[in-house]
Amino acid sequence: MRTQVDINCDMSEGFGAWMFGDDIDAAMMRFVSSINVAAGFHAGDPSTIARTVRLAKEHGVGIGVHPGFRDLVGFGRRHIKATAAELVNDSIYQLGAVREFVRLNGVPLQHFKLHGALYMHAARDEEFAAALVDGLQAVDPELPVLVMGGTAIHQAALDRGQPVVREFYADRDYGEDGQIVFTRKVGALDPDQVAAKVLRACQRGAVETVHGTTIDVEFESVCIHSDTPGAFELMNRTREVLDEAGVQIVSFAA
Amino acid sequence: MRTQVDINCDMSEGFGAWMFGDDIDAAMMRFVSSINVAAGFHAGDPSTIARTVRLAKEHGVGIGVHPGFRDLVGFGRRHIKATAAELVNDSIYQLGAVREFVRLNGVPLQHFKLHGALYMHAARDEEFAAALVDGLQAVDPELPVLVMGGTAIHQAALDRGQPVVREFYADRDYGEDGQIVFTRKVGALDPDQVAAKVLRACQRGAVETVHGTTIDVEFESVCIHSDTPGAFELMNRTREVLDEAGVQIVSFAA
Amino acid sequence: MRTQVDINCDMSEGFGAWMFGDDIDAAMMRFVSSINVAAGFHAGDPSTIARTVRLAKEHGVGIGVHPGFRDLVGFGRRHIKATAAELVNDSIYQLGAVREFVRLNGVPLQHFKLHGALYMHAARDEEFAAALVDGLQAVDPELPVLVMGGTAIHQAALDRGQPVVREFYADRDYGEDGQIVFTRKVGALDPDQVAAKVLRACQRGAVETVHGTTIDVEFESVCIHSDTPGAFELMNRTREVLDEAGVQIVSFAA
Amino acid sequence: MRTQVDINCDMSEGFGAWMFGDDIDAAMMRFVSSINVAAGFHAGDPSTIARTVRLAKEHGVGIGVHPGFRDLVGFGRRHIKATAAELVNDSIYQLGAVREFVRLNGVPLQHFKLHGALYMHAARDEEFAAALVDGLQAVDPELPVLVMGGTAIHQAALDRGQPVVREFYADRDYGEDGQIVFTRKVGALDPDQVAAKVLRACQRGAVETVHGTTIDVEFESVCIHSDTPGAFELMNRTREVLDEAGVQIVSFAA
Repeated sequence: MRTQVDINCDMSEGFGAWMFGDDIDAAMMRFVSSINVAAGFHAGDPSTIARTVRLAKEHGVGIGVHPGFRDLVGFGRRHIKATAAELVNDSIYQLGAVREFVRLNGVPLQHFKLHGALYMHAARDEEFAAALVDGLQAVDPELPVLVMGGTAIHQAALDRGQPVVREFYADRDYGEDGQIVFTRKVGALDPDQVAAKVLRACQRGAVETVHGTTIDVEFESVCIHSDTPGAFELMNRTREVLDEAGVQIVSFAA
Repeated sequence: MRTQVDINCDMSEGFGAWMFGDDIDAAMMRFVSSINVAAGFHAGDPSTIARTVRLAKEHGVGIGVHPGFRDLVGFGRRHIKATAAELVNDSIYQLGAVREFVRLNGVPLQHFKLHGALYMHAARDEEFAAALVDGLQAVDPELPVLVMGGTAIHQAALDRGQPVVREFYADRDYGEDGQIVFTRKVGALDPDQVAAKVLRACQRGAVETVHGTTIDVEFESVCIHSDTPGAFELMNRTREVLDEAGVQIVSFAA
Repeated sequence: MRTQVDINCDMSEGFGAWMFGDDIDAAMMRFVSSINVAAGFHAGDPSTIARTVRLAKEHGVGIGVHPGFRDLVGFGRRHIKATAAELVNDSIYQLGAVREFVRLNGVPLQHFKLHGALYMHAARDEEFAAALVDGLQAVDPELPVLVMGGTAIHQAALDRGQPVVREFYADRDYGEDGQIVFTRKVGALDPDQVAAKVLRACQRGAVETVHGTTIDVEFESVCIHSDTPGAFELMNRTREVLDEAGVQIVSFAA
Repeated sequence: MRTQVDINCDMSEGFGAWMFGDDIDAAMMRFVSSINVAAGFHAGDPSTIARTVRLAKEHGVGIGVHPGFRDLVGFGRRHIKATAAELVNDSIYQLGAVREFVRLNGVPLQHFKLHGALYMHAARDEEFAAALVDGLQAVDPELPVLVMGGTAIHQAALDRGQPVVREFYADRDYGEDGQIVFTRKVGALDPDQVAAKVLRACQRGAVETVHGTTIDVEFESVCIHSDTPGAFELMNRTREVLDEAGVQIVSFAA
């Protein structure tokens, strides 16, 4: 029976004149306790990062870096077959870039979370996961890494003593193995259902699978994707339901 | 009568499979005491930066960040009409990216030097110069900035107490006002002449202008451009001549 | 007293997952007779171009190429100090890219119009204007170029026999010299005023200047910027007013 | 017993200030009858393309377009998991861009050859191969496609009547199935051996496999990679040996 939980979502996902949910970024800041800042490779030019970090500081929201594949046109959702060393260097570069903006604002960097196809790559590829955590150990051994529980990067972090924060995915379906299942959706998600799912996960540590069974879930942060259609409503309703149930939204680092 | 001087040159100027003087980078490391690391916007992808920083550490060379305009195809030599705020954000981004690689290698970031057209922009544009130094004051008020003496950025740094390192340009011509003169050269520079020019500047604080007169020059670092044709020979000969004259090559930060 | 006029607007201005007015592109197609297709350098990735060209063909809208500076983050609105030869090559490249998509759809390329800062550069810089039209003469001497009347590129095209189409800017203010005046606007434009302005220009060949005087204007196409706030309403109302007045919207190439 | 053969190699592989074998491009032009022009996505900015096409025209060399993945930092050698439709659009875009430069020079576009990882993708992926050839059928049904014999794209072209030109790879090893084998090489290839291998393939239609056996090979063009170490010497010696044996280097389109 949890009385508080972290909610994280992606931000800084515009690029130059293009905004991607940016219109609602300021509104979204009120619902979450942590944000993942796109760091320039899949989205997030320096001025967008600067604006987002300043806004997050004003709202007292925890700021993490969100490195992705170097793929603007694909928004970091396309896998690129690169060596582990290259991808670690890309991640270190993006980490440093965002860290400088939090430094500029006099706040700490709260966490590290990979984006899109690179998040999935670290979940599956042991070589990359290990090399990445080795890199994090060298630059910031206390920096929490947001992960899907039971994945390669989760294990690599545990093995090396890098702090981990496991995520619960509010807007994704679960299989019986506790992993995310990609299903083709028709239309937007129902805010009431999503909110109820999150509340249940917080209160009972359980989630219903796509097969109708119930499994246990362990997590320290709830992830709501800001590019899920209707994200604002999902987040608004989830926040209301958690508030009513007395579950506070508080960063895992608080 | 100076007994030691810093020599700086640009490095990490390749991008992916392309190398730009990279073949001689390892050799160049033996001649200089400080390098300026291209940070990804005009050259220098993360893996090239990683390799360069590691090599510099092995050679005990001081590592600076070398932000440029976002212009790979123009190698940062083309002016882009952007706002001061945008360019400061671009510079902070690049600063952080390179800083993370020096952190990865357990060495400090030694200095900040702008590249190409952005270097010239900060020399001339007071608004950008002021905004940039304000940014540096916020993230690293002790970080020395390499500048051309008497320029807008020099003054902005002095006004705000940001440390400055003035440069002497071994491979550029001087006018009577102490500023660089852009002349159309035929063929490569003569290593003996360049070496003699540097030695004289070090020993007597003087340089001959394009008009044949002699003016005083004040500086804390000698800049030799690694992309000047025959750069390796210029640097090799300069180093020999300074060695013979008992002028040691030592970083300004040593 | 004109009974028909061309209306052109910019399209294909998204990039990958980012859309920029794309949601209304299909709607906008119903209002215009010609579109300018962003060609990849400031906006418009190949798949966005492909989609836009297909849609334009379905609506029977004339398709032009809209080359810009290589500047995604700046949306081609920032001047880049490049040589005329470089910019001509960039323009030829973008022209060819879009031409291949119109070929793929079995329709002709209708016109050539530069974007943003590059449009302004060709208006002012005689060397670039001349070199560009020389290039167009070599690849397509019959391709109409959309220009601001009385500019460098207008003259260069006249001198060389390249067809020109002069524009009237529905959403810009005019000075007494017939040139566009950049004024700081408060809020969105009034659709009724814009529509009346276009109708008057069509019927009487006149426009009111920012000083309240009236000057003559000559043009073959009306430009409405799709990124002007409220563009959809401006275009909708303009179209209604022209319809009522019996002015048909027909491409200049029809 | 062949009396003439085409030799193709990649060119235009620089980007802005970076050159990649560009110093020897002019020399290479004398050895080959066809070139593959990098089209901007993995290498080859517009000004490099312009220069290469002009040079090829001067040497009477056949000019093909060489589309690659959008991956400058990876030089198009890294697979990107993209949809077939996206990759076809990327290819059409690059095809058009290069076609405009051959048009600028008053010469025809001779062929189409994919680059690096995209070449391999079309060899293996039937969906992409089919969609790509459908695209080529729409824009240029007479344009020959350079392929590895027996691959997906070879079959797709045969099925649709798109002309194909099969390649023999001078600087790659063959397996017993007639496919390329990737072996780890120590040092550069021996020019005499490569030249002898090409001559034998031309005269007897045979090549020795990595297992020491001999297999038949059918081809219309010999590919020598310009980025193979020692490429200039390989090509120089191959050309000499073919000359002595009376095998002329003539484009397949001549």
